[in-house]
Amino acid sequence: MISKDSHTQHISQQFNAELEEVRSHLLAMGGLVEKQVNDAVTALIDADSGLAQQVRDVDDQINHMERDIDEECIRILARRQPAASDLRLIISISKSVIDLERIGDEATKIARRAIELCEDGESPRGYVEVRHIGDQVRRMVQESLDAFARFDAELALSVAQYDKTVDREYKTALRELVTYMMEDPRSISRVLSVIWVLRSLERIGDHARNIAEMVIYLVRGTDVRHLGLTRMAEEVANTRS
Amino acid sequence: MISKDSHTQHISQQFNAELEEVRSHLLAMGGLVEKQVNDAVTALIDADSGLAQQVRDVDDQINHMERDIDEECIRILARRQPAASDLRLIISISKSVIDLERIGDEATKIARRAIELCEDGESPRGYVEVRHIGDQVRRMVQESLDAFARFDAELALSVAQYDKTVDREYKTALRELVTYMMEDPRSISRVLSVIWVLRSLERIGDHARNIAEMVIYLVRGTDVRHLGLTRMAEEVANTRS
Repeated sequence: MISKDSHTQHISQQFNAELEEVRSHLLAMGGLVEKQVNDAVTALIDADSGLAQQVRDVDDQINHMERDIDEECIRILARRQPAASDLRLIISISKSVIDLERIGDEATKIARRAIELCEDGESPRGYVEVRHIGDQVRRMVQESLDAFARFDAELALSVAQYDKTVDREYKTALRELVTYMMEDPRSISRVLSVIWVLRSLERIGDHARNIAEMVIYLVRGTDVRHLGLTRMAEEVANTRS
Repeated sequence: MISKDSHTQHISQQFNAELEEVRSHLLAMGGLVEKQVNDAVTALIDADSGLAQQVRDVDDQINHMERDIDEECIRILARRQPAASDLRLIISISKSVIDLERIGDEATKIARRAIELCEDGESPRGYVEVRHIGDQVRRMVQESLDAFARFDAELALSVAQYDKTVDREYKTALRELVTYMMEDPRSISRVLSVIWVLRSLERIGDHARNIAEMVIYLVRGTDVRHLGLTRMAEEVANTRS
């Protein structure tokens, strides 16, 4: 017969294993979502409709991952009644999973535009910007997940800060494309497709920022949403959990 | 001295009161968000930049409501360790609050465009569509909240179904505006602003649908996200909680 102490220890080890498992599922989903962003942008730029179709097919797998991770979180909440940092971990996972799923949706939208634009065949305006901003937001997704994996609030802060750069470059690219449409009205429809792609990329940056904010909440225990970057940086510098 | 029974009863009454309170806070936030959508569209159509500015000012209040409701949910999870339908209530609230906040963001974006377009002064294309789709999505937000207030899965289902109609009308409006841009390239910048407004409205419809799906989860206990409307309708018809 096992003693009460070893029984408690056994439960707590099992609990930790469950927490570790759901966290690793989130990171696996994140890895797949990051690949989707990369593949969608590559499909567009290389006019590779096969790769674009593959991105669309994988989206369903991401939706399933969201459901599964959500179910795991709910099961842990119901059975284990986590508190303090364990509760914060479950909450950050269940919020971040929403952003990951939406990043997946945006990647799918880009893939759909890629297929349209492949059929079109013409040399397209705005692809330099798509590649550039695409690289930036893919890195934001990657680093927000790294920050989650390493409980790294400073890295998360830098992701949130970087979102400002992406927004600025997005606006510049948009202005250029509008000018181009005015100069060549026959290109409107095609250029508009590229604008939607840029918009999706900008949204992906926003979602990566949301995940980064959840990492700061997880590590520091402070809800930094809507605080502004200056206050956010102060919170990351000052709060020690 | 109070008996153990009456003590337990007291705790459970207090718990119910807390659940009721957080739910009523969500509905209050929802009411304000719905008003924001209405005001933003009115500001645009009536070229009322004062009203548009008011929408922008209120956004901060909505962000605060999101934080407060989130904190309430976390406190309840930590202290009360809810199970079964109580846990589902907390989860649906903490997911729906994200969608409400994003609807608020979209209303603010519309208000920002309204201010730009007011300064412009010209009689604008696409306003009929903005008014029409604006009415539709405002009603979707309202009904998703009614469904939440009344635990009404059928009403929630009808909101989710209606999202298809909005998507269709959005696409039609978009096609017309693109044609108009081609015919009159000088209008591109202005028409593009109207397109962004329509895009925001379409996103608001998506968020209302997300809330509706959470109501179905709350009432029926089934996660109907990504199921498709046919399966969703079956789940609502078959599952009895």
